[in-house]
Amino acid sequence: MQDDLNSRLSDAVDAAFDRQVDFLSKLTAHPSTRGNEQSAQNFMARELGIRGLELDRWQIDLEEIQHLPGFSPVLTPYEDAVNVVGTHRSRERSGRSLILNGHIDVVPAGPLEMWDSPPFEPRVADGWLYGRGGGDMKAGLASNLFALDALASLGLAPAADVFFQSVVEEECTGNGALACLARGYRADAALIPEPFAERLVTAQLGVIWFQVQLKGRPTHVAYAGSGANAIEAAIPLIKALHAMEHRWNAAEQRPADYTHMDHALNLNVGKIEGGDWASSVPAWCVFDVRMAIFPEQSIKEAKAEIEQVILDAARSNDFLRNALPEIVYHGFHAEGYALSRDGSVNAASAIDALERAHRSVTGVKLEREAITATTDARFFGLYANTPALVYGPRAEAIHGFNERVDLDSMRRVTKATAMFIADWCGVEES
Amino acid sequence: MQDDLNSRLSDAVDAAFDRQVDFLSKLTAHPSTRGNEQSAQNFMARELGIRGLELDRWQIDLEEIQHLPGFSPVLTPYEDAVNVVGTHRSRERSGRSLILNGHIDVVPAGPLEMWDSPPFEPRVADGWLYGRGGGDMKAGLASNLFALDALASLGLAPAADVFFQSVVEEECTGNGALACLARGYRADAALIPEPFAERLVTAQLGVIWFQVQLKGRPTHVAYAGSGANAIEAAIPLIKALHAMEHRWNAAEQRPADYTHMDHALNLNVGKIEGGDWASSVPAWCVFDVRMAIFPEQSIKEAKAEIEQVILDAARSNDFLRNALPEIVYHGFHAEGYALSRDGSVNAASAIDALERAHRSVTGVKLEREAITATTDARFFGLYANTPALVYGPRAEAIHGFNERVDLDSMRRVTKATAMFIADWCGVEES
Repeated sequence: MQDDLNSRLSDAVDAAFDRQVDFLSKLTAHPSTRGNEQSAQNFMARELGIRGLELDRWQIDLEEIQHLPGFSPVLTPYEDAVNVVGTHRSRERSGRSLILNGHIDVVPAGPLEMWDSPPFEPRVADGWLYGRGGGDMKAGLASNLFALDALASLGLAPAADVFFQSVVEEECTGNGALACLARGYRADAALIPEPFAERLVTAQLGVIWFQVQLKGRPTHVAYAGSGANAIEAAIPLIKALHAMEHRWNAAEQRPADYTHMDHALNLNVGKIEGGDWASSVPAWCVFDVRMAIFPEQSIKEAKAEIEQVILDAARSNDFLRNALPEIVYHGFHAEGYALSRDGSVNAASAIDALERAHRSVTGVKLEREAITATTDARFFGLYANTPALVYGPRAEAIHGFNERVDLDSMRRVTKATAMFIADWCGVEES
Repeated sequence: MQDDLNSRLSDAVDAAFDRQVDFLSKLTAHPSTRGNEQSAQNFMARELGIRGLELDRWQIDLEEIQHLPGFSPVLTPYEDAVNVVGTHRSRERSGRSLILNGHIDVVPAGPLEMWDSPPFEPRVADGWLYGRGGGDMKAGLASNLFALDALASLGLAPAADVFFQSVVEEECTGNGALACLARGYRADAALIPEPFAERLVTAQLGVIWFQVQLKGRPTHVAYAGSGANAIEAAIPLIKALHAMEHRWNAAEQRPADYTHMDHALNLNVGKIEGGDWASSVPAWCVFDVRMAIFPEQSIKEAKAEIEQVILDAARSNDFLRNALPEIVYHGFHAEGYALSRDGSVNAASAIDALERAHRSVTGVKLEREAITATTDARFFGLYANTPALVYGPRAEAIHGFNERVDLDSMRRVTKATAMFIADWCGVEES
């Protein structure tokens, strides 16, 4: 009977797939970079409302979340940071409840001329949809939504409460997902279709963002010897940070999920800015760094070591010694999270259900992967005792140019999601 | 009789000195950074007009100057670039004509919090005037103007044409001074009171500005190994450029005026910008460099070597090899200039006149200096066969924080300038 239902769900996803691609295309056209998520969230709210879900939209309130575990510091106010949740209330409530989570925010497109076509004018070619955010992770939001649609088209609904979350801030803090927790959203499991090629994510890294601020003593360049170049002062600090990265990646530091990876922890100097005038020795330079940590590493200790490394390097530099850099944290303070360490019956059961759904769609075993990034899964797993399954479509060049998502992969994930919902929550007449 | 006149001129400068400081203070309050010179130029034009000088104001016309020797390339239009010249027409024209030149543009202030008081709210303390541009070189514009005032207050005027120039663009191209040449302004000598501590500048360096543009292949930082970090790709290029700087400064490369200087040629990485997001491997990085050359060095050959150095370094870098940097020139294409090499009778005579004026004010010999910067003097000396005397007040921290000019020094320079005008141009009843 599950086989029969699965087959009908598969047909239902196929029947609506053109509309799903159209939905994804429209959603990807909203340039929902940080601070600009509103129009995309309006679009999501409308789509959730049309489907009869109970709507909840709210602006993230820093006061409410800033003392919670998992909070990441931010420098700017959250005036534009609005979460959207659509709730399906089951009549029977005979099954297990579920959070379907996805993030609406996308990273900046970078120089437009490096895109073959404009990043926010999505296009479909050869089975891929191209556009910033198409893969990371609007295709996931689409598969969550159209999985529910597939059930509805059969006159069915989940036999447990389902919370459809479209959150902001995944790409810089995770405070959007944290705000959902603070608002009281809880379920027996969470599914997050981040684009990891139909593999189940068994572990993810922690991530710390920090900004290093250097100040120099500027002077006319004619007397460069007497000034201190704040831009060039950054170079030995970057070098010292890479040495730390190398140490942290050493074989003996790696936890179980990462033993096979020579370089899981990447340090990235992602942004730099400094100086005002070619002929003035630059007075200032600011650079932004992303560093990963293993699930076992403590953020506090990691930060202490980062600070030590920067200050030690600064103290061996003639200029920096007298003008020590400032280290500012804004953005990710994310711990690692390993679903593989969740020994609960609930977790095993959720993984089994996903495994069955995946096999039913693809005919092959569900592969596992420890990833070198973070996702919002940590909030559910670490701070709400909820197994979080990260499982989504194949995408390429996420955070890069010509980002794209494999539409056939999105189709399979949508089917697997519908089947997983039916299995995990059970179904009732809608 | 010259002694008597000098003494009266000295008294006249003293008598007007409070007004001169007030003038300097008002002028320094105009934040005349590049593109924002208009209000300062309006102020200058008004002051020249009040004094009965014949006014000429015009916008720099790129068409008119871009094929002239000494032109420096620019990326932005010259809509806001207005020169002001006030002309004194002598009735007798018995003496030698003179250009009194100064630049109105100032370099950016940099981070405001590093100033003890706001850069464009000048203040006087302990005999210094503090403020961005106070030294470089609004005190010079003030001394030019109040030197003429001193003559006028005695009922005298120069017995030759005098062209008072307030030009833009000295700090980035020199195209303001070039536009004065193109407009036909010529004289037997030029005086430019740049702030070199009452020493006569006998030689100045050439300066080249160039921008290096790097493009990387961005990716999610989780896969940093497969991306190419455009910010970090800049580091080996900067290193190679410093090696070139070292070679160019070698003892055997130094011309006569610079043999005693170990490091006259400074390479400055003055600005950098790159990347959009801490967790995206940066796709791009742009940095701006200022490099000096000796008076004997050809700009063309220097540029060829700069390009070679950058491309060679790029080719030995895994990433850059496949995405060679672009080198863009905007800003200084300035040749060096040595007044010391001007063997003309005119030059010797002008220097003698300044020497006499300086000694009359200070009682000591006029010191000479080869400077490690450029000034607009090159246009007069190289392209108009006009000896250009750079001689101005003492200032500190030009291009730095808490820039300041020594008011007693400005007073002495104003007196010396008045005496020099009287000597060089002769005087007539006004």
